[in-house]
Amino acid sequence: MNALEQLRGRMGELYDLAAVEMLLWWDQQVIMPAAGASARAQQLGLVASVTHERGTDERLGAWLDELEGVELSELERDLVRIARRDWTRARRAPEDLVVERARAGTEGQQIWQKARAEDDFEAFAPALARNVELARAYGECMAEESQSVYEGLLGDYDYGLSTKHLQQVFGELAQALPPLLADAQAQSPQRELAVPVSAQRAAVEGTLRRLGVDEESWRIDTSAHPFTAWVGMGDMRITTRYSEREVESLLSSLHEFGHALYERQIDPQLERTSLGRGTSMSIHESQSKLWENHVARNRAFAEVLASELDAGGFQIAPADLHAALTGVAPSPVRTSADPVTYPLHIVLRFELELELIGGGLAVADLPGAWRDGMRRLLGVEVPSDALGCLQDVHWAAGSFGYFPSYALGCLIAAALWEAIEAELGPRSEDLRRGETGSIKRWLAERVHRHGRRLDTLALVEHATRAPLRSEPFLRYVASFGERRD
Amino acid sequence: MNALEQLRGRMGELYDLAAVEMLLWWDQQVIMPAAGASARAQQLGLVASVTHERGTDERLGAWLDELEGVELSELERDLVRIARRDWTRARRAPEDLVVERARAGTEGQQIWQKARAEDDFEAFAPALARNVELARAYGECMAEESQSVYEGLLGDYDYGLSTKHLQQVFGELAQALPPLLADAQAQSPQRELAVPVSAQRAAVEGTLRRLGVDEESWRIDTSAHPFTAWVGMGDMRITTRYSEREVESLLSSLHEFGHALYERQIDPQLERTSLGRGTSMSIHESQSKLWENHVARNRAFAEVLASELDAGGFQIAPADLHAALTGVAPSPVRTSADPVTYPLHIVLRFELELELIGGGLAVADLPGAWRDGMRRLLGVEVPSDALGCLQDVHWAAGSFGYFPSYALGCLIAAALWEAIEAELGPRSEDLRRGETGSIKRWLAERVHRHGRRLDTLALVEHATRAPLRSEPFLRYVASFGERRD
Repeated sequence: MNALEQLRGRMGELYDLAAVEMLLWWDQQVIMPAAGASARAQQLGLVASVTHERGTDERLGAWLDELEGVELSELERDLVRIARRDWTRARRAPEDLVVERARAGTEGQQIWQKARAEDDFEAFAPALARNVELARAYGECMAEESQSVYEGLLGDYDYGLSTKHLQQVFGELAQALPPLLADAQAQSPQRELAVPVSAQRAAVEGTLRRLGVDEESWRIDTSAHPFTAWVGMGDMRITTRYSEREVESLLSSLHEFGHALYERQIDPQLERTSLGRGTSMSIHESQSKLWENHVARNRAFAEVLASELDAGGFQIAPADLHAALTGVAPSPVRTSADPVTYPLHIVLRFELELELIGGGLAVADLPGAWRDGMRRLLGVEVPSDALGCLQDVHWAAGSFGYFPSYALGCLIAAALWEAIEAELGPRSEDLRRGETGSIKRWLAERVHRHGRRLDTLALVEHATRAPLRSEPFLRYVASFGERRD
Repeated sequence: MNALEQLRGRMGELYDLAAVEMLLWWDQQVIMPAAGASARAQQLGLVASVTHERGTDERLGAWLDELEGVELSELERDLVRIARRDWTRARRAPEDLVVERARAGTEGQQIWQKARAEDDFEAFAPALARNVELARAYGECMAEESQSVYEGLLGDYDYGLSTKHLQQVFGELAQALPPLLADAQAQSPQRELAVPVSAQRAAVEGTLRRLGVDEESWRIDTSAHPFTAWVGMGDMRITTRYSEREVESLLSSLHEFGHALYERQIDPQLERTSLGRGTSMSIHESQSKLWENHVARNRAFAEVLASELDAGGFQIAPADLHAALTGVAPSPVRTSADPVTYPLHIVLRFELELELIGGGLAVADLPGAWRDGMRRLLGVEVPSDALGCLQDVHWAAGSFGYFPSYALGCLIAAALWEAIEAELGPRSEDLRRGETGSIKRWLAERVHRHGRRLDTLALVEHATRAPLRSEPFLRYVASFGERRD
């Protein structure tokens, strides 16, 4: 076997290991009996260790070196380029640090769970301080030349983004969103809508079927937190959850569909290579947000959702359903935030984690900084730390640099949606009839098929013919403030 | 780390890999969308290759050598002894042969599926010949000093058994069973029983709950062929299947429960070591057959099953249910055979595969030899090869030496049951009330907890205080010919 064949073999193994890890995780959330948890932790640990071993191995480096002098196709060059990047990054942090960080993240989550339940930030502070310190050490290892420690962390989720760029874009949001909020609240007030779970379930299944979700290649299940697992190109698994008091399931199922569709429409040529998955967290989130914000919350698509609820035995006028899906009201909690205020929750987290990692904010001062930020950005008083700086699992698990992708996803989704409608014409008539083929094809061509061949910023440029920017999202937000019929 | 710690670490990895493989397999049969099959084959291939690499590695051999001179506890000595056996056996066959055999087995199954559907033995013959040849080559590698090729194959399923011993025991069955069959048929005639699936499902779940199957640690699902997956000590998964025309589900669910209980009651000290699973295929089958033949088919336990069916909305007298579960009628098909004729199906397969591997029977002559054997052993005319020598997947998949465990399981189960009743007294009164605690505790103590510390024959001796023999099973069979009330 030549070096390219050996490299491809190894890439295939790493691809399969990622799929096995995905399945172990999916099964844990959806299927596994509770008492299987400790064995599952061992199994996941083993897969992580085999992945590390196979991903950092000297021989892999030797094959990559050998391929420097070989004439390659464009696809092969991309494959080698990303394989080298992954190999280099995987070897940058010492294994001891990686293991210690994983352990601290697991312990941090346990401590956090109790601290949040008891609204006791003091109990959580030492674990958070440890996570910050380990993340800082890790970011120092990962930062490339001229990069900051925070950028070293960011690179694991969104390769190529700079802190400065994020500060600029998020600064625009922090400036522009609060003034738009008053109109949005006035014109799109929050409304309660209770729908029987059986009708929601029928609507979720019926709507997804219209989007192409068939039993041959997909599963729809329920889990405590909705998520998506891609176990294979023909094995896509999305989950949602149901509550009688709201219709979150209609949004979250389309959100997860967007994640799954991205992975499913990657060029089959890239399967089992270093290029065969979504390129970054923010592009992934843009795909889920596109289906959540621009399809599920589209006025025309409300007719489809209402007719599917009707088929499930629940009658509602499409306009009323649309109003319920697009109500605006600032709240202290990110996960229940409306699409207008959502990115402001992220701006706050970005500002704070940047300071935590940089050392400008002490862990002890976090609760106060959080309250100040919520007041400034959202005009909201935080009732407790449990509903304040203790609400998210991310920092407890040791994830820093992850939050920005949530807001970037909103911005990129809006830019993609404008590009789709600019090129294909308004989608309302198609969406009214539940036809999404043209949208799926456009996304496949401009976004999905490339896999990791293009990084976040290059992909945005390629897909929207414009750099990453906030204007399309701000126009989307402004539409919430327009007088409604 | 010293050699023992390193060995324990490696054993833990191999244990976790086996669990991951089990989960991948379970998911494929129960959960996976059909289009996930090709990715799943890759994932299973990867796990097999990592397992081979980690199981045959030179360093493992060096740790074992180092431990030769070290003072160890009894448990540690067993751990090292079995680890060395596994390491030695795993290294005995060249990897090329193992890979080719796996591939031939996969292809053989595909060819067999079509050939069986079309009742076309000719189409299957070349694939079978290839499997026989590769099994022979593999058996030659695996056979230890003074062992035959067939014994080399047998060792993968039941270490320590000899062909001669099997010939003796199966010869007794071939002699003793046919004369018992006429009385059994007369006194326990086959009866049809149709039960709605909903009632069967309720009865399966209700009965298993009485046996200790709870949601905390167990799953009950359906699949095309019932099987059991142990994904962790606290993650036991059994499957069954339902047909309105019969009550197989009541038998198969208890059968699978027996397999699961064995793994679940292994001494927790043995978890993640070379000793932490069932010791052999025949002992495993003895556990499933004990619950199927001696509990589910017990006259007293029919009261429990009837009351659980009643709770599911189906009324039947316990005696009638018992009669339906114990009807005897020779048939050409193994999987629907009654408990009396079942081992004769295995005797035939053992005789034939021994000749195939030994070279005394040519593949082309198999169909005729099969018909002759069925006539001789069961008095049955084989209507077609599809219902004759093409009925089982085992040889198509390349498994030779596996069939004997099915009959040995019946024999050992009967011996264990006699030992239980001899030591604890008749179990009828307990079974009538659905109480099985004493049986489970006896099995845990005498069979389950030992894991792989005792091989098949030693375990039988330890558990029943007698060597492996056919008499207890023949007494069980004779009871089918006794006059019924």
